[in-house]
Amino acid sequence: MKVSELGERELISHITKSLTKTGGNVLVGAGEDDCAVLDIGGEDYLLITTDMLHRKTDFPSRMSGWQIGWMSVAVNLSDIASKGARPIGVLMAMGIPPDTELAFIDELVKGMDDCASRYSTGIIGGDTDSHDELTITGTALGLVRKELLVHRRGAKQGDLVCVTGHPGMAGTALLALDRGLPVGNEVLKALFEPAPRINEGIALTCSRSVSSMMDISDGLALSLHDMSKAGDIGFKIYESRLPVLPKIKGLKNEELLEAAVYSGGDFELLFTVSPDKIREAKKACQFTVIGEVIEKGIIIERAGGVETLKARGYEHFKDLVPIRKI
Amino acid sequence: MKVSELGERELISHITKSLTKTGGNVLVGAGEDDCAVLDIGGEDYLLITTDMLHRKTDFPSRMSGWQIGWMSVAVNLSDIASKGARPIGVLMAMGIPPDTELAFIDELVKGMDDCASRYSTGIIGGDTDSHDELTITGTALGLVRKELLVHRRGAKQGDLVCVTGHPGMAGTALLALDRGLPVGNEVLKALFEPAPRINEGIALTCSRSVSSMMDISDGLALSLHDMSKAGDIGFKIYESRLPVLPKIKGLKNEELLEAAVYSGGDFELLFTVSPDKIREAKKACQFTVIGEVIEKGIIIERAGGVETLKARGYEHFKDLVPIRKI
Repeated sequence: MKVSELGERELISHITKSLTKTGGNVLVGAGEDDCAVLDIGGEDYLLITTDMLHRKTDFPSRMSGWQIGWMSVAVNLSDIASKGARPIGVLMAMGIPPDTELAFIDELVKGMDDCASRYSTGIIGGDTDSHDELTITGTALGLVRKELLVHRRGAKQGDLVCVTGHPGMAGTALLALDRGLPVGNEVLKALFEPAPRINEGIALTCSRSVSSMMDISDGLALSLHDMSKAGDIGFKIYESRLPVLPKIKGLKNEELLEAAVYSGGDFELLFTVSPDKIREAKKACQFTVIGEVIEKGIIIERAGGVETLKARGYEHFKDLVPIRKI
Repeated sequence: MKVSELGERELISHITKSLTKTGGNVLVGAGEDDCAVLDIGGEDYLLITTDMLHRKTDFPSRMSGWQIGWMSVAVNLSDIASKGARPIGVLMAMGIPPDTELAFIDELVKGMDDCASRYSTGIIGGDTDSHDELTITGTALGLVRKELLVHRRGAKQGDLVCVTGHPGMAGTALLALDRGLPVGNEVLKALFEPAPRINEGIALTCSRSVSSMMDISDGLALSLHDMSKAGDIGFKIYESRLPVLPKIKGLKNEELLEAAVYSGGDFELLFTVSPDKIREAKKACQFTVIGEVIEKGIIIERAGGVETLKARGYEHFKDLVPIRKI
């Protein structure tokens, strides 16, 4: 059997099952959540996450070196954000084609450094390697007070489903660029310079109102499926409540909606809040309530009735429309 | 200017200079040592290191999937060993060609898991990505008691220069395989299943006898140069004291010596000990005293006189004889 016959999630699940269980100080291990969680004593848990990105698959060709660097750090910080943690360091390993101009590397590193600095942390280590295709593996570390840690699991029936920002903004930008349509800077930035929701994640967990949380970098639908699996619960969301982007000239409403649900690349937070704590959550940051936690199933209520939300989004190995390619 | 016009060390130094200095809890940052060192409170320092490896450049073609997995973890644990730390977790990000057989991935993951388990830790996270060439980026975390931390710097004039095992064993195995010469299992294992010196590193730092330490994965000569730069001191080593491998049929003594000094791929520890503490160090583990710390210069005393030891070894980007390729 070839790896391509499995999707990325199935492959990860297959690999995870074969690993020796690490007990001791490992609270959350491989394949279980957005970050691994370690108890190394003290008041905080240590969180760690890693992400590998490649020039062709992960970075739209129009991205500048600075933007590639920024995004490589941001994608890792987004996982730290999803645990409500504060980042304490980022490591960047780079596989670089030998004929790369040093000026491009300078730009790339500046982007990495600027993103880390923007979120009060820094590049504390890394590795360089010679490689045919530009390959970047980032690793981010974070700390969160033990009593404030949230997981993908934890949502209870009746909890409200919430999301920050406009899911689908990166996918929409990609679609618009693809068709040569004019889009505003804010939308383009979502694709080229995504902002991890570090501050929102910290504020939300500090409000102690959140029952579960993750980021939606692989798309809203796929993330709802991940959360459903982790927490053994279901979701009902409402099309009418989705914070779909205001109309973009040349794109149909249906396309904007499709992007909001199924496209990846947004570093927004998806989380659940018990109804009696929604006021506390609202004080923490801006977000939209898009549905509620149900017993099972993942469904969307549309004008025409209720539909099942497919587990479709950004996955490697699967023959999907590449979401981030231009 | 192209990246290929710089060596790996020059590139890292160039990148490191451009980074915003991270103060606060970062004790040792990018490019300064084998690991980054963070103070996150408590009795221990947190250490973290990352290494990117590629199928073509880093793994001899005869290596099995299991051995590739083992080595990907071992190379990271070797950096943890060089700080005398105990490993607490490993993350593995893998870029996998889609037509890879799942059975190969199973083997690979088993090798990773076995290596981590062998050193009382585990694979706690990672990432999978679709990629043309098998690419593996490992990240290892470790803890060390604050008062026991050793650096690349710290050696003092008059300290003894020591090394564990037989430097050059991996390089010798490669040379022998290249020429179709028969070599013993122990030598082949050094190349295909290198053992990070975790236990030796811990025992040495616990003996409080070590003034500086690093691993020699890029070769003894290059590591002496790194240590000299970090500690602003020099080294004199003696050819007659080098623990060169016993004669291997078909290889000249000169070739064995060349491998001991200039070839990479050995996960041995290079460290310095004050003469009055050498007895304490000897109780910790087996090693060989190969020279002493001098004011400046890196020299080797040979039968014919004293020579300067060149900064030659395993570096990416440079047109060197590839040390690990078959």
